[in-house]
Amino acid sequence: MSMRAAYDEALSAVNQDLVQMTRSVGTAMNRATQALLDADLSLAEAVIANDAQIDLLTSGIEERCFDLVALQQPVARDLRIIIGALRIAASLERMGDLAEHIAKQARMRYPKPAIPQELRGTFAVMGGVAEAIVAKTGAVIATNDVSLAADIARHDEEMDRLHRELFTIVLSPTWSHGVEAAIDVTLLSRYYERYADHAVSVTKRVVTIVTGEPYVGVSLEG
Amino acid sequence: MSMRAAYDEALSAVNQDLVQMTRSVGTAMNRATQALLDADLSLAEAVIANDAQIDLLTSGIEERCFDLVALQQPVARDLRIIIGALRIAASLERMGDLAEHIAKQARMRYPKPAIPQELRGTFAVMGGVAEAIVAKTGAVIATNDVSLAADIARHDEEMDRLHRELFTIVLSPTWSHGVEAAIDVTLLSRYYERYADHAVSVTKRVVTIVTGEPYVGVSLEG
Repeated sequence: MSMRAAYDEALSAVNQDLVQMTRSVGTAMNRATQALLDADLSLAEAVIANDAQIDLLTSGIEERCFDLVALQQPVARDLRIIIGALRIAASLERMGDLAEHIAKQARMRYPKPAIPQELRGTFAVMGGVAEAIVAKTGAVIATNDVSLAADIARHDEEMDRLHRELFTIVLSPTWSHGVEAAIDVTLLSRYYERYADHAVSVTKRVVTIVTGEPYVGVSLEG
Repeated sequence: MSMRAAYDEALSAVNQDLVQMTRSVGTAMNRATQALLDADLSLAEAVIANDAQIDLLTSGIEERCFDLVALQQPVARDLRIIIGALRIAASLERMGDLAEHIAKQARMRYPKPAIPQELRGTFAVMGGVAEAIVAKTGAVIATNDVSLAADIARHDEEMDRLHRELFTIVLSPTWSHGVEAAIDVTLLSRYYERYADHAVSVTKRVVTIVTGEPYVGVSLEG
C-alpha cells in the first residue's frame, strides 16, 4: 500500500469514528428524551452511564488525529481535515453531555415526571428535531454532502422556535406549575437548543473543509 | 536564527495570543457583570459589540497553529502544545460568548435591572470569582505553573456553591419576584457556572501538556 493509500485509510477511519459518535450522541439524546417523557429511571441511568463511552470515543479520535499528524505530517487540506475533526469531536462530545444533562434532570425528579403533562408534546417534538438534526449531521460527515446544511439550518430554526414557545408558556399568567417546574422546563429546553447549535457548528466545520470557505448561512451563526 | 529558535518564537506568539484572549474574556465578563449589576445599557452594548473581536482572536490563533503545523511539521510534545492551543482557544471563545449572554440579558431587561436587588451581592461575588478564575487561568497559560490548578478548582467549587445557593433562593416559598425573574436568575447563574467550567477545562489542558498526564483532580471533572 502506498503512503497516500495508507494515509487515506487512516483519514477515513477518523471519519468513521466521527460518524459513529453522531450515532452515539443521537442514541443518547433519543433515550434521554424517552426517559424524560416517561419518567423512566433505568433509561436515564443508561444514558448517564454511557456518557463515559462517548468521552472515550472523543479521546480515541484525538489520539488518532495526533498520530496522523505526527507520523504523516500532512499539510494544506489534509491538515485542515484533521484539525476540523478535532473540533467536530469536541462538539459531539458536548452534545453527549447535553443528553446526559437531560437524563440527570429526569433522574432528579423521578418518580415524578420532570415536565408537566401538557408540555410532553413540545418536548417530544424537540426530541424529534434533535434526532433529525444529528442524523443529518452524521450524513454530512459521512458523505461531505454540504447541501444538507440548509436542512440542518431549518431544523435549528425549528428548535429555536420551540425554545421560544416554551419560554412564552412558562411565563404566561396561566402557568400553574410553579417556579421549580418553570426552571426545569427552561433548562431542559436550553439543552435541546444547545444540542442543535452544536450540530450546526459541526456542519459549518464540514462545509468550511469541503468548500475551503467559511460557511455564512442563514441562522448558522452563533 | 535557527529553525528551532524560529519555531519557539512562533510557539511563544501563540501562547501570548492565548494569554491575551484570557484578558479579553476577563474584561468581557467584568463589564457584563457591571452591566448586570447597574443595568448599564452602554456597557452591555460594548460587551456585545466586542464579542466579534474575541472571535477574531480565536480565528487568528487557529490560523497561526495551522501554519505552524503545516510549515514546521512538529511532532511529540510540540504537536501536543499546538493541538492543546486549539482546544484552549475554543474554550476561551466560549467564555466570551457566555459573557455576551449575560450582557444580552442585561440589555433585554433594560431599563429594569435583570436581577432583584437582594441578589446583587451574590452576582457580584460570582463576578469576582469569574475574575479570579480567568486571571489565574491566564497565569497558568503564561507560566505553565500548574500548581495554580488547585486554586482554580477551589474557585470552581465556590462558583458551583453560589449556583446552588441561587437555586435554593429562587425555589424558596418566600421568593416574591415571579417566574420570569426566577428563570433570568437561573440562566444567568448557569452562565457564570459554565464560564468557570471552561476555565477548569483550559487548566486541565495545560496540565496535560505540561505533565504529559491527564489531570484527574478533585472537582476538575465535568
